[in-house]
Amino acid sequence: MKVGILGGGQLGMFLSIAAKQLGHTPLVLSPDPTASAKKFSDFTLGSLDDPTLLQGFARNLSVLTYEFEHLSVSVLKKAGVSPLLVPAIDALIVGQDRDLEKAKFRSLGMPTAPYLILRQETDLDAIANSIGFPCILKTTLQGYDGKGQRRVKSLEEAKQAWQDLAPHPLIAEQWVKFDRELSQIAVRSQSGEMAYYPLVENVHHDGILFSSVAPAPYTTPSLVTKAQSYVQRLMDELNYVGVLALELFQVQDELLVNEMAPRVHNSGHWTLEGAVCSQFENHIRAITGMPLGSTEVKLPTAMVNCVGEMPKAAVLNSIPGAAVYDYGKEARPGRKLGHLTFTAADEASLREKLNRFAESIGKKS
Amino acid sequence: MKVGILGGGQLGMFLSIAAKQLGHTPLVLSPDPTASAKKFSDFTLGSLDDPTLLQGFARNLSVLTYEFEHLSVSVLKKAGVSPLLVPAIDALIVGQDRDLEKAKFRSLGMPTAPYLILRQETDLDAIANSIGFPCILKTTLQGYDGKGQRRVKSLEEAKQAWQDLAPHPLIAEQWVKFDRELSQIAVRSQSGEMAYYPLVENVHHDGILFSSVAPAPYTTPSLVTKAQSYVQRLMDELNYVGVLALELFQVQDELLVNEMAPRVHNSGHWTLEGAVCSQFENHIRAITGMPLGSTEVKLPTAMVNCVGEMPKAAVLNSIPGAAVYDYGKEARPGRKLGHLTFTAADEASLREKLNRFAESIGKKS
Repeated sequence: MKVGILGGGQLGMFLSIAAKQLGHTPLVLSPDPTASAKKFSDFTLGSLDDPTLLQGFARNLSVLTYEFEHLSVSVLKKAGVSPLLVPAIDALIVGQDRDLEKAKFRSLGMPTAPYLILRQETDLDAIANSIGFPCILKTTLQGYDGKGQRRVKSLEEAKQAWQDLAPHPLIAEQWVKFDRELSQIAVRSQSGEMAYYPLVENVHHDGILFSSVAPAPYTTPSLVTKAQSYVQRLMDELNYVGVLALELFQVQDELLVNEMAPRVHNSGHWTLEGAVCSQFENHIRAITGMPLGSTEVKLPTAMVNCVGEMPKAAVLNSIPGAAVYDYGKEARPGRKLGHLTFTAADEASLREKLNRFAESIGKKS
Repeated sequence: MKVGILGGGQLGMFLSIAAKQLGHTPLVLSPDPTASAKKFSDFTLGSLDDPTLLQGFARNLSVLTYEFEHLSVSVLKKAGVSPLLVPAIDALIVGQDRDLEKAKFRSLGMPTAPYLILRQETDLDAIANSIGFPCILKTTLQGYDGKGQRRVKSLEEAKQAWQDLAPHPLIAEQWVKFDRELSQIAVRSQSGEMAYYPLVENVHHDGILFSSVAPAPYTTPSLVTKAQSYVQRLMDELNYVGVLALELFQVQDELLVNEMAPRVHNSGHWTLEGAVCSQFENHIRAITGMPLGSTEVKLPTAMVNCVGEMPKAAVLNSIPGAAVYDYGKEARPGRKLGHLTFTAADEASLREKLNRFAESIGKKS
């Protein structure tokens, strides 16, 4: 089948490779002439905001998917490609707007941190007596990797943030003292069959994912049940097909749902080595109507992002057997340039490997 | 380090990827403009038989290795590159000549099937009263993947084969009723440290490797000890640095050494998914003076070659989670176009997967 992919970054690249491996033909549309997916796909250079181009790109495709949720819904509709889109446009609409997203979580009984939607600057006055300071202000649209958000400790700081952050409205979220961040990645087939990867423990640095450990250590059956129940409710509600990621905060034995990504997710890269069937293969399986593959864990696995620079040879040297992915991007501070994965026979030696690696690059895991 | 690689097929490709992942710069010289290694290396198109070209290619390299042993020793010497060569030229000389190879095995106490070297046609007369018919005639030089060899049942057939096979001399090997074929892949560092992958069970179809299962089931400690002892003797004798493969026939609890490959080997492709550190990474580690990585098995793993054609999507469909490698070569009968790897939690379910896959493509595993 001809599988169209909007966006050609590392996610588009891994989706392309998976599609090829399953015997499909991946076609990527990206505005970036140096896109990572370029050499693994039939590549079209062009804007994602041009309905005519999009319409031409989608001609003869069997299915159209995307690697990120910040696509213009009106452009997709104008191009007439939304019937081809999997996951469907509803997931995109909810996934790209923190306001709709949080409301959807709440309506499905999925707990979130207390929050306020701020439509005008005077709405900031309500923070002190509702969610309180410190809190975190985020744009409801276009945010990712810590961009478009700021932690504020007072109304004064909030007013400054209102000026700096755009577009409005904003969302103000209570600053929750969570124990740790987790993510739940799941896949749903065209017939509604679900498969769940294990809970993953994530560590962020400066708003960007630094490391993921799978399965997350110290998970209780109650946590697993909650996470799977939440993601299933959401996917069933959206009649979702493909892979979806849910970012969660753990507070003791409770899970607060932070956000959803209607796509394959950075915290699922470990599945390339660590799971029987990767998130990329399962996404392609789902959207092309193939049976889902097993989400079973092969071995405890850790993934570390290479942000701003790729590690030096001497560092790689210290972790024999690491899978090293270089996305072939130009280095820029704060940019995800690649990632490493390593597995171990058990949780303890995995943790030891991860700590040793993090230390060697001067980071905390 | 700048790592030169002679040959740009799939082995050169996987070596290039490993070199890159370790922070080195791979440079490949190949006469094939469509070489698989091309997009993973600094690629030079050119003949491996041109001393001047070779000399230029080797300028500024830290080390020079090769993906296959049928290189012209005189060209390498004329180009003055043999001091850069790792594994060293002695290994190449022995590895490319079945006569020298067998003599080396014998001198080191490594058992082989009975054999005769046939320097002229009249030497064929000795077969009947020594190793007997049927036997297998092989060119001593240039043979691979079942090419340059023929099974003969009589002197008459042997005479015909003498005419057909070239170059001479030939080697006649006794037709051994072995129980199965195994291979032992090992790596030796610059300081003489050894690491051994487990014994692998191999099945050939028409002289071409069809499948490898690692670790080989039903191995006894005595078999493992013999295999490791043989390969260590050979590598120590050659003061070998890098990965080497030994092909073995098992006859009850004995091992007959069939041949050596002074390089990474097709029966070690499973290590990409199945071992902590792949044969490619360990080869690059060894030749660049890095510490060796672990050869430990992560999970029972099977590798299947895709010969003549890549499997259809429906077939891939049936084994979720398989790693599929397409070398990007033009399809030709008998040509290795790619391979698949799959892992399983235990030997039995691995065997079941392998059998199911082989059946789906109409082959015996």
